[in-house]
Amino acid sequence: MYIVGELINASRKNIASAIGDRNSDTIKEIALAQDRAGADLIDVNAGVFKDREAEHLQWIIENVRSVTEKPCCIDSPDPKAIEAVLSVHQGPAPMINSISLEKNRWNSLLPILTGGDLQVVALCISDEGMPETADERLKIADRLINGLVRNKIPIENIFVDPLVQPLATNSVYGTEFINAIERIMNGFPGVHTICGLSNISYGLPERKLLNQTFMIMAITKGLDSAIIDPLDKRIMGVIKAAEALRGRDEYCRKYLGAYRAGLLNFG
Amino acid sequence: MYIVGELINASRKNIASAIGDRNSDTIKEIALAQDRAGADLIDVNAGVFKDREAEHLQWIIENVRSVTEKPCCIDSPDPKAIEAVLSVHQGPAPMINSISLEKNRWNSLLPILTGGDLQVVALCISDEGMPETADERLKIADRLINGLVRNKIPIENIFVDPLVQPLATNSVYGTEFINAIERIMNGFPGVHTICGLSNISYGLPERKLLNQTFMIMAITKGLDSAIIDPLDKRIMGVIKAAEALRGRDEYCRKYLGAYRAGLLNFG
Repeated sequence: MYIVGELINASRKNIASAIGDRNSDTIKEIALAQDRAGADLIDVNAGVFKDREAEHLQWIIENVRSVTEKPCCIDSPDPKAIEAVLSVHQGPAPMINSISLEKNRWNSLLPILTGGDLQVVALCISDEGMPETADERLKIADRLINGLVRNKIPIENIFVDPLVQPLATNSVYGTEFINAIERIMNGFPGVHTICGLSNISYGLPERKLLNQTFMIMAITKGLDSAIIDPLDKRIMGVIKAAEALRGRDEYCRKYLGAYRAGLLNFG
Repeated sequence: MYIVGELINASRKNIASAIGDRNSDTIKEIALAQDRAGADLIDVNAGVFKDREAEHLQWIIENVRSVTEKPCCIDSPDPKAIEAVLSVHQGPAPMINSISLEKNRWNSLLPILTGGDLQVVALCISDEGMPETADERLKIADRLINGLVRNKIPIENIFVDPLVQPLATNSVYGTEFINAIERIMNGFPGVHTICGLSNISYGLPERKLLNQTFMIMAITKGLDSAIIDPLDKRIMGVIKAAEALRGRDEYCRKYLGAYRAGLLNFG
């Protein structure tokens, strides 16, 4: 499982303050903690600072990269901001979060991606809106993947996000999402699927129970990446258990290692 | 989800003592508690008392049936014991646990089932031994289901148990099992699948974490019945969450009801 640590996001109060105060220590600490907890990439988002997004992202990335070798996931809807910060990201290529089928976004981000080694999250959304069914998601995913591959982005660098929608709105939204995961993974060998899962439980009680359960269901259908809080021991434990049960953990080595490190004991 | 409450089993010390002492209160209490916690059937097992199994089962069944309308799941490998106790089971037809493809068991149990309204657990095991792969399970399931249907057991009364084997023995045993669930449910419309899941975690630490995770994975692949401890609030909560996420709980009514009843709050 490929883990993107979600904590360095300016929509969180402590991160917004750290950015405002140029408090490097907080950013470094949270980056390092996520690295140590098992994040493969560190998400960086300064979206709430509209005018100064690029400037803030640069500062964040420099701080993150000073404490960890893990690349960043540059989380911005603004291709200009993304382009501006790429130059400060040294070392292994970062991930771009995200392109979509929305015309403006597609046209402006594609030149940045073409022929390079960036990884990219491809959101299943178009100018016609958000998909609801597995069929609608598959249609958009098909156009996204084929469009990106045609533009020399290797399929292994594409992470399709089929977009989770709240179960409280429609009781088939969970099923439609996980079926989309399965069909995308079976239909496009080599591609990855990724998502933030917490939208599923929006408006319902005991959200962590629903989020954890849904994570396991999505992994069962083939999900191989997720944007989560790697400091949440329970979700990380649940992922390790699911990976072992899915046969992706020979001799349960990783599961047993996590147990010995005290990471699975949450009662 | 169809829940078989597993607690009245003489391999448990308190149950063996209650049987030995003819302590009706204990049996009735545990039967009623499982009923109230959401069990659809009450498993009854006196297998450790070899010579007196039938006699003990009769006494247990009379006690269980005196406090709940839920039928029993008669859990015995001995067709003679099963036949002997059927007469004391009044009310809705019980479930028989279990028939298998082993020749002696098949031949002696089939006449009891033929043309009746008993539900039956069909274990994927034959005289050649236990299956390891999804393919092997499917072959046995196919012979079991077709054999039972040919003998006038309605497919809706058949609960196939593909037999969980310990992940610690082979890291593909989890995947092979859940893939068998999916293929049986897709291949034989109307049939049910059932299992006790706890074997999966045998020999590994944090067994509850693995059992709960595996339950969700099996439900994702179509499992619709399980033999569990319905007093375990966490496994019941996990099942309710999975059912809602699977789209089997309109407007999340059951999930919200369980929440209001305080059944989902386990930290």
